[in-house]
Amino acid sequence: MNHDAPTRPAPDRTIPVRIGPRGYEVRVGAGLLGRLGPLVTQALPAPARQALLVFDAALPSATIDAASASLAGAGLIVSRHAVHAAEQSKTIGGVGAILTAAASSRHERADPIIALGGGVVGDMAGFAAAIYRRGVPVVQCPTTLLSMVDASVGGKTGVNLDLGTGGERAVLKNLVGAFHQPVAVVADTDTLRSLPPRHFRSGLAECVKHGLIGAEAGDPGLLDWIGSNVGAVLGLEPTPLADLLVRNIALKARIVETDEREEAEAARVLLNLGHTFAHALEPLAGLSPDSNPSNAPLQHGEAVALGLVAACELSRALGLADASFVDQTRSLLSRAGLPVRVRGLPSADALIARMAHDKKATGGAVRFIVPTPGCRARVVRAPDPGAVAAALDLIRG
Amino acid sequence: MNHDAPTRPAPDRTIPVRIGPRGYEVRVGAGLLGRLGPLVTQALPAPARQALLVFDAALPSATIDAASASLAGAGLIVSRHAVHAAEQSKTIGGVGAILTAAASSRHERADPIIALGGGVVGDMAGFAAAIYRRGVPVVQCPTTLLSMVDASVGGKTGVNLDLGTGGERAVLKNLVGAFHQPVAVVADTDTLRSLPPRHFRSGLAECVKHGLIGAEAGDPGLLDWIGSNVGAVLGLEPTPLADLLVRNIALKARIVETDEREEAEAARVLLNLGHTFAHALEPLAGLSPDSNPSNAPLQHGEAVALGLVAACELSRALGLADASFVDQTRSLLSRAGLPVRVRGLPSADALIARMAHDKKATGGAVRFIVPTPGCRARVVRAPDPGAVAAALDLIRG
Repeated sequence: MNHDAPTRPAPDRTIPVRIGPRGYEVRVGAGLLGRLGPLVTQALPAPARQALLVFDAALPSATIDAASASLAGAGLIVSRHAVHAAEQSKTIGGVGAILTAAASSRHERADPIIALGGGVVGDMAGFAAAIYRRGVPVVQCPTTLLSMVDASVGGKTGVNLDLGTGGERAVLKNLVGAFHQPVAVVADTDTLRSLPPRHFRSGLAECVKHGLIGAEAGDPGLLDWIGSNVGAVLGLEPTPLADLLVRNIALKARIVETDEREEAEAARVLLNLGHTFAHALEPLAGLSPDSNPSNAPLQHGEAVALGLVAACELSRALGLADASFVDQTRSLLSRAGLPVRVRGLPSADALIARMAHDKKATGGAVRFIVPTPGCRARVVRAPDPGAVAAALDLIRG
Repeated sequence: MNHDAPTRPAPDRTIPVRIGPRGYEVRVGAGLLGRLGPLVTQALPAPARQALLVFDAALPSATIDAASASLAGAGLIVSRHAVHAAEQSKTIGGVGAILTAAASSRHERADPIIALGGGVVGDMAGFAAAIYRRGVPVVQCPTTLLSMVDASVGGKTGVNLDLGTGGERAVLKNLVGAFHQPVAVVADTDTLRSLPPRHFRSGLAECVKHGLIGAEAGDPGLLDWIGSNVGAVLGLEPTPLADLLVRNIALKARIVETDEREEAEAARVLLNLGHTFAHALEPLAGLSPDSNPSNAPLQHGEAVALGLVAACELSRALGLADASFVDQTRSLLSRAGLPVRVRGLPSADALIARMAHDKKATGGAVRFIVPTPGCRARVVRAPDPGAVAAALDLIRG
């Protein structure tokens, strides 16, 4: 991956997210954090006195300082709150610490919370903003590819719940939260230059997922485009990178616009493509993307990549696609540097039992999103266990 | 107060609360908890498998069992979670315990939480329902006069935040929460027969508050009606009691309908009448309604009663009302068994400084709702401190 500065910065791009009275814009561009202050104050519904900057403690200090200085330059008093951005930090207690920081600085209802980081920071800070004084504005500044194309659009916020009975299954992911749309999303592509390459590749898994359902969401050509541009994207070439972000954010936005609160479960459910499998793999701490134990556990995007392969194979096993469909997906994910098989997988029976505990399960029936040729997908409830086992066997390393 | 069973039960009364797609009904009547199961299942937007009953541990077991048995009779699996219904329990941790109970029983998105108790239980269970799986249905079953006429309508839920720096001012009331409308409110008037008389009288303070702003909310005759019927209401006579509930709930509903999320701050802000004063008094643990130290601290309604007297006197000091207006309010509150003065009050300066910390303060300016003759009210920001001091002097015992 090329970590040098781009020779020709791409111009800002803006994607409107039209969800009723709470519509907002996602802005994509290089160096945006240096202009964060005016971007925030322009997006606020009422004048603010201060801002609480909730940031990933692992970000380069230059990134945090650029955001903070720009907010201060726009006349806002800035308080900072660092978050250790690991899934284990995503707890009610972690959100309580953000709320306490807000209360300690006498944060009022018009004062925004600014989330600077990846999905964990966005989820926690967004949830804190949803419940502090029953709702204050939040501005999402995603700094990872995954959070730019996925978590920052949709308004989902939340934390995990640890049942405290011991064992990996005691942690229930995203079980507690709120829908809270941001007033703005600011995606500074420069932050991707300091992102570890493995994290960048993980974000690409969600882009491939979007591509696989592209025809369901107004971009039937996305998958082919990713196939043609994956090298340039991995090289962080400014224009392909911006194009990737804009197309993926716009696709997610179109889905969210039709189904803001998941009440209809029409389009938005398709975004779970690969995730029924992925959620069963993620808690398995021993799995590694490259059979190197020091790289365990899987990142979310790596589990999604494996889940996409399994979902394609499930489609084939159910007679909805042929083997070449599966091979094409595997090939694209491999070119993106993502795993398509993994060693140390438990038995199919054990994994199927695990999926029954998935939080999306309704009345005990496990639901799979199954991709089909032409970048379409369908929902299949409780498919033949033999087909699910075949899907799992394909990703067994 | 007459704790005997009524000789002639009042018929059920229903008040619709029309707030967009999430409208619901408040049902008022005797013996409603014995019919809770069908009332819940009819109100749910989707079929449920189970219900989590969150109840005040101090309620008579017959009340809890009646609710639980009716829910089970309607085909719901019932889990129970007891709450010690004190203001100190209203914490993020307390809500976490409800969430854990829901997760432990594998509560799904269609499964309701049933709040059975007063304001603390309704706030905590309502907030838990707002954030569990980003929102599950809640049915509010208020068992106190205060929660029937006030807390159960409006969709406000939340908990306090303890900044943990020691001292009474470290607890910020209702600083964390969500707007989450119930799918139904079931107010069983029989529960008021086991309510301690002091708690019942405290609820009357909110009714008098509603009466004072009656002309602003479509019921200009409410105050006079309370004046004529306060004795019958204190005697728990079925028809006057039901009339009181229905008129107060309907008034609150009209205000909430025009201003669901407090965004306009138009009508709903008037509900803070007396509360700027009351919030300054409530944390003072030594205050007692009758100078008997063993009755300290003040209950919320008692602080509101004192706040209403102070607000009337503030109105007089600002030239908006005459002395007879103040005397009439004092007289009515006294007949309701509520305090109109209190011993041991700090200096006016100390109390005014305390009010500046009120969470409704915006940019430092303290806001008072000032009642005026004809059951109207207006908002006054940062009035002359001398007038505020005069108002406080009138309630100084």
